[in-house]
Amino acid sequence: MNDTLSLLMNHRSIRKFTDEPVTEEQLKTIVAAGQMASTSSNVQAYSIIAITDSEKKRKLAELAGNQAYIVECPVFLVWCADLYRLKKITEPHVDDQPTYEDSTENFIVATVDVALAAQNAAVAAESLGLGIVYIGGIRNRIAEFAEMLDLPELVYPVFGMCLGHPDQQPGLRPRLPVEAVLHRESYDRAAIEEAKRYDQISAEYLSKRTNGKNRTPWSEQMGKRLAEPVRLHMKEFLEGKGFMKR
Amino acid sequence: MNDTLSLLMNHRSIRKFTDEPVTEEQLKTIVAAGQMASTSSNVQAYSIIAITDSEKKRKLAELAGNQAYIVECPVFLVWCADLYRLKKITEPHVDDQPTYEDSTENFIVATVDVALAAQNAAVAAESLGLGIVYIGGIRNRIAEFAEMLDLPELVYPVFGMCLGHPDQQPGLRPRLPVEAVLHRESYDRAAIEEAKRYDQISAEYLSKRTNGKNRTPWSEQMGKRLAEPVRLHMKEFLEGKGFMKR
Repeated sequence: MNDTLSLLMNHRSIRKFTDEPVTEEQLKTIVAAGQMASTSSNVQAYSIIAITDSEKKRKLAELAGNQAYIVECPVFLVWCADLYRLKKITEPHVDDQPTYEDSTENFIVATVDVALAAQNAAVAAESLGLGIVYIGGIRNRIAEFAEMLDLPELVYPVFGMCLGHPDQQPGLRPRLPVEAVLHRESYDRAAIEEAKRYDQISAEYLSKRTNGKNRTPWSEQMGKRLAEPVRLHMKEFLEGKGFMKR
Repeated sequence: MNDTLSLLMNHRSIRKFTDEPVTEEQLKTIVAAGQMASTSSNVQAYSIIAITDSEKKRKLAELAGNQAYIVECPVFLVWCADLYRLKKITEPHVDDQPTYEDSTENFIVATVDVALAAQNAAVAAESLGLGIVYIGGIRNRIAEFAEMLDLPELVYPVFGMCLGHPDQQPGLRPRLPVEAVLHRESYDRAAIEEAKRYDQISAEYLSKRTNGKNRTPWSEQMGKRLAEPVRLHMKEFLEGKGFMKR
């Protein structure tokens, strides 16, 4: 065990922040650490939008499901997959050749690029004593959200991230047993049985957190989630932004 | 600066490994650290396949563009977005309800989930003195690749990762200026100008690495990349696996 491993193993999402601001130096350090993550063929296909304006945070929070911590955190980061910059800077070099920024492959490249950078940034933030929580809710009303941030074609907001000084220390949420996710040599369908063990583990954790009020097993929670027709607008939105056309 | 930040800022992709094996304990620690990354609504929509068999690595390397380091690394990890496990474990809870594992939204959730976990694992590996390189080439012949790993429906290999003890210390590749990727309050199209500054920075780095033989600016490299019709099979492959149907 080393300090970095210990930091990774103790990650909790933080949803309550003190008033202490995040300094400009901290913000730039966190983004620079994010940028050092691997990037597919050096495309660096992401942009990060830092929101500190209270009124803007309030409006964005409303679009993202009214989570109070989006307003309360000192800095709200919006992590965007960005192929627009790539298209613009390469225009002088491609003449009249067709280009493939609209492929599903490049959509995946950009989405993975932004996630790798964001996770590095999350680790960097936690190493500085700050806390974060990812916000998938920004995809709830993504067209309005994108408009409010003036996102051009070929840019989409993948997730948000609240950043600030933690004002809580939540419990450590257990994950699936390693054996459920780590396969050897090929995909092992029997690993599903290991995942079933997790129902018990997660129910106990939930029960402890809710003083016995909630003991819903993981598989049942996930069943509810999968049965909800969530964000079915994504395909149309992304195609409208110029992504995944082929 | 702290040890974790210093580790993040010194990341290099490693493409040459010593013969020293990765222990079972190291592998499990790295995967467990990956699992502690944030996951959307706790779906944990990923599976990792560890390949150590030499013959299997050789075959997979052939499908992924014949990169020697896939064969030479002691452990080759294949990071898969996995909605199959979710579908299977939730079946008893959804009865005859329709479920939405086939939505573009859930495709994004799974792809982001696997990338966050992988980046945590990469950081964990480096903290243990190991080195990694991501392999996008596994998407070159993805259908054959998936078949060789016996991947079920709703599972796709997003990227590979070579893992082992570094036998090289490559230079530190400079990234885009922070100002090119970090926007304030909304997307700033003028940040493209900051990206143009990077042409000079990256050309100097490349020239140093190639003893002056190659000074291609970044924008020109990217132009070549974007003009290549790379992996246009991805859309059809993913739809065939049950992803992104709506």
